[in-house]
Amino acid sequence: MKIGMIGLGRMGGNMADRLRAGGHEVVGYDLDPQSGRDVDSIQALVEALETPRIIWVMVPAGKPTQSTMDQLASLLSDDDLIVDGGNTRFADDQMHARMLEPKGIHLVDVGTSNGIWGKEKGYALMVGGTDQDVERVMPILQTLKPEGENGLVHAGGTGAGHYTKMVHNGIEYGMMQALAEGYAVMDASDLVKDPGQVMASWREGSVINSWLLDLLVKALKEDPGLKHIAGKANESGEAKWMIEDALELGVPTPVTTASLYARQDSQIADPTTMKVVSALRKEFGGHPVEQE
Amino acid sequence: MKIGMIGLGRMGGNMADRLRAGGHEVVGYDLDPQSGRDVDSIQALVEALETPRIIWVMVPAGKPTQSTMDQLASLLSDDDLIVDGGNTRFADDQMHARMLEPKGIHLVDVGTSNGIWGKEKGYALMVGGTDQDVERVMPILQTLKPEGENGLVHAGGTGAGHYTKMVHNGIEYGMMQALAEGYAVMDASDLVKDPGQVMASWREGSVINSWLLDLLVKALKEDPGLKHIAGKANESGEAKWMIEDALELGVPTPVTTASLYARQDSQIADPTTMKVVSALRKEFGGHPVEQE
Amino acid sequence: MKIGMIGLGRMGGNMADRLRAGGHEVVGYDLDPQSGRDVDSIQALVEALETPRIIWVMVPAGKPTQSTMDQLASLLSDDDLIVDGGNTRFADDQMHARMLEPKGIHLVDVGTSNGIWGKEKGYALMVGGTDQDVERVMPILQTLKPEGENGLVHAGGTGAGHYTKMVHNGIEYGMMQALAEGYAVMDASDLVKDPGQVMASWREGSVINSWLLDLLVKALKEDPGLKHIAGKANESGEAKWMIEDALELGVPTPVTTASLYARQDSQIADPTTMKVVSALRKEFGGHPVEQE
Amino acid sequence: MKIGMIGLGRMGGNMADRLRAGGHEVVGYDLDPQSGRDVDSIQALVEALETPRIIWVMVPAGKPTQSTMDQLASLLSDDDLIVDGGNTRFADDQMHARMLEPKGIHLVDVGTSNGIWGKEKGYALMVGGTDQDVERVMPILQTLKPEGENGLVHAGGTGAGHYTKMVHNGIEYGMMQALAEGYAVMDASDLVKDPGQVMASWREGSVINSWLLDLLVKALKEDPGLKHIAGKANESGEAKWMIEDALELGVPTPVTTASLYARQDSQIADPTTMKVVSALRKEFGGHPVEQE
Repeated sequence: MKIGMIGLGRMGGNMADRLRAGGHEVVGYDLDPQSGRDVDSIQALVEALETPRIIWVMVPAGKPTQSTMDQLASLLSDDDLIVDGGNTRFADDQMHARMLEPKGIHLVDVGTSNGIWGKEKGYALMVGGTDQDVERVMPILQTLKPEGENGLVHAGGTGAGHYTKMVHNGIEYGMMQALAEGYAVMDASDLVKDPGQVMASWREGSVINSWLLDLLVKALKEDPGLKHIAGKANESGEAKWMIEDALELGVPTPVTTASLYARQDSQIADPTTMKVVSALRKEFGGHPVEQE
Repeated sequence: MKIGMIGLGRMGGNMADRLRAGGHEVVGYDLDPQSGRDVDSIQALVEALETPRIIWVMVPAGKPTQSTMDQLASLLSDDDLIVDGGNTRFADDQMHARMLEPKGIHLVDVGTSNGIWGKEKGYALMVGGTDQDVERVMPILQTLKPEGENGLVHAGGTGAGHYTKMVHNGIEYGMMQALAEGYAVMDASDLVKDPGQVMASWREGSVINSWLLDLLVKALKEDPGLKHIAGKANESGEAKWMIEDALELGVPTPVTTASLYARQDSQIADPTTMKVVSALRKEFGGHPVEQE
Repeated sequence: MKIGMIGLGRMGGNMADRLRAGGHEVVGYDLDPQSGRDVDSIQALVEALETPRIIWVMVPAGKPTQSTMDQLASLLSDDDLIVDGGNTRFADDQMHARMLEPKGIHLVDVGTSNGIWGKEKGYALMVGGTDQDVERVMPILQTLKPEGENGLVHAGGTGAGHYTKMVHNGIEYGMMQALAEGYAVMDASDLVKDPGQVMASWREGSVINSWLLDLLVKALKEDPGLKHIAGKANESGEAKWMIEDALELGVPTPVTTASLYARQDSQIADPTTMKVVSALRKEFGGHPVEQE
Repeated sequence: MKIGMIGLGRMGGNMADRLRAGGHEVVGYDLDPQSGRDVDSIQALVEALETPRIIWVMVPAGKPTQSTMDQLASLLSDDDLIVDGGNTRFADDQMHARMLEPKGIHLVDVGTSNGIWGKEKGYALMVGGTDQDVERVMPILQTLKPEGENGLVHAGGTGAGHYTKMVHNGIEYGMMQALAEGYAVMDASDLVKDPGQVMASWREGSVINSWLLDLLVKALKEDPGLKHIAGKANESGEAKWMIEDALELGVPTPVTTASLYARQDSQIADPTTMKVVSALRKEFGGHPVEQE
């Protein structure tokens, strides 16, 4: 197939490479002139494609995606199709679809996993949209996905691709934190000689066998005790969105929430909650407080 | 009554003062010669009392209390009675009672609240021991307690005094953290002009009316924004013990636990769990990590 | 002052009574003909007031409030003022204000606490709006509030009244759960004879002295062991909204969240998460599962 | 090697089979005469082995293990070695070692994973004890472990085997709960057509690729929607012990704790905490409560 690709960063660029290697023709555009882009504007990209067009958008979620959608809404025509392959919030997908629908422009949302490993091994793809629209982009999806029967799912209507990717990442948060707590306890205990060695042993025959375990063992071999990594972890939005939707659904997600809070805590240098607790301890108990 | 008091620090010294003001005779001992002690050894204290003796022990929990119990076990006689007014873990009370029982020495455990306010307003007392033993020390308890019908309870057998004090402090942790979270959210929101003023308004007519709220309003008046207090809070053991016993009882205590973890987190400069999470993010996603 | 009151249920009816007792003239309307309403439609209520009008809306949050706002938007004129005294989400206040503003209609949002006690003792009031608008309704607020210097705060611009009420309720959730966990642990332990008696003792001289403690002691006297109350608790939205805003602000609120999850859990008869955990235990360990 | 095996249940029996298939001689004993035991008492088992003996104990943790240890202490001689392959708490291992040491009896503690899959594929083994003792039982461990370089670790001194198994299971709890929450959210959302299909797709190319994911996909294929499994999950002690040790170490483990609490909650029909919350809501707000 011939498609347009907007966004040629680490993710988009690798995807374009994998698509070309798979026999597709890709017209690439990126804001950055050094990106190896084929055209120097979105308008030029639109003009370079025959109708009905398929354009894969792979730009950061939020304003960059919104701005791209707005431009495409004014440039595309009836029966053109946009794939949003970024990390857009599912509610925004639904808003975009409502904006595009009167112009006859179709939207498919695709959540992707496997980050830096995807170019070589394929990307796990979670897809939202109508049956017809998903069918239409299937040749591209088949090239991007990993080999084998798994790695691709049409999860539901518009937004379902990003929704299930969001849930995937929420699970990822919990699994990572579970491994982290286990490591931290062994690390703190005098009883365990080498927590990294213990974790390596679990790669065979244990219930927690997983890719994340493999990666942690690798990281611990490269940097025993993780001495060169700071105890701060970022969050990227998906776990937060999953918790917010779970709150509305009335489904308690204590582990996902605890995982997110641990990351948020690690970013806060001087937590206000602890200022309050410390101030109260001083008031009622005369406990000394650390002054600032 | 005439009693001995071992430990004349902030708590024990104030209690001795309140007891003397209430007409009791107190023979005081403390390790510190500057403490205003009446005698200079535990042996001298024991000798200064007529049998059957009553001795109130008000020293730090753990080794100091253990050492005092060991000494008293060898110095006291049949029918003497020890009151442990410190923060001993309830399981240790029961161990002490088993050690003292063959020698005919009685043990009453008393948990106390109201810290620095107690000398003037009285101490809330939670008492564990047999009916007879508690009856025997009742004149002292009546003097130490606040006025009114409340502020004193015979909670159960040996250990029940410290057990209920432990639960009291666990509740205290949760209440403090609840207030702290509410303050922190208002403080972070652009919408609220002055969180301290809002909290002050809640002192009348609101469901969360409480002494802790009063104290927080006071602290916020003295130091608006709590700018001079560091975001670190200590823990003193009781909430931890409550959680441990709740784990054994199979009673989930998520709020007490979250309150304790928040304090523990605030003491950890570079959390190992977040090193692991950050290392994993780097491994699978190529996310940049902060180096140390 | 003369005002209109829409909604004469438990809250609105009592407020109208308190206002009349305070010398104000209240024209009341309610959907229910049995409510003691003065007029039988919102239009009639609007016509019964002289411009510029003040109308207090005291109807359930969500659709009833939205529908009332929509009707008032079409009936009111320049310089009229609506007070939303219900439990509207702060983001909805801001949406209502944007809808009303082009017509010159003013909005003040008021969060109220003290439920069934307010008629007699006054309502704690948290108020959002411009200085001029809040000043304009001050005579009504002064009558509704409790006596004394506290119980009323102008928290900030539009939405700040409901925002701070939302935070108030979030704190309330945490405090209630803290008390509940303490009671549950004592109730489960063999060591404590009568948890209700212990809690009663804490009403004097203890750090956790609070109105909620008083109420719990009262409830335990009326129904020792709470044998006649089911172990299910509802949630009313505010704690959830507070958590959602805290998630966006990046302020961890583990205690508020744990309190909400405990209530949600209590409403779920057959939790899907535990089905999954149980299915997994069966798969890897051959552990027996309960069949349905 | 020739060893004794006490306990021929699902775990012990399969291990004896795997050991015999690996060329070892196993004298088996079990309380149950139908177990296929070789001897009908522990004494007979001890007499059937030449000194210095090696005896693998594979009985339930707690009293059965304690009773077995007590009997072996009186029957074994200098230089005999006991392997405790059960789920004993690490602190109990250390107590057992202190009891056996004066008699010259050695103790090695082994935590095992892989439950019902172990007979065929091997057991992941985590081992605690001295270098010499672990070396002595290495031929047995090599036969029991899975093929490959992983699946066996000498984690540290006495107790370290069960300690690391305990941590392994704590991690397992968190991972299972993370998967469960993700499934439950997708199941509750209208947006996702078939959560089981989504999870199946994640088996390739996704970060959360894991054996637990494979098992969940299998369970969902056998019983779509898990309609035949009750929403109750048991706990087996290890996660609780890990949390208790983490509390003492000052390492917050919010995800492990939340996972355990979710299981405990699922076992409690009528939670006392929610009775309290509900009673309080009735007291201050007149909210209706469900009666019992």
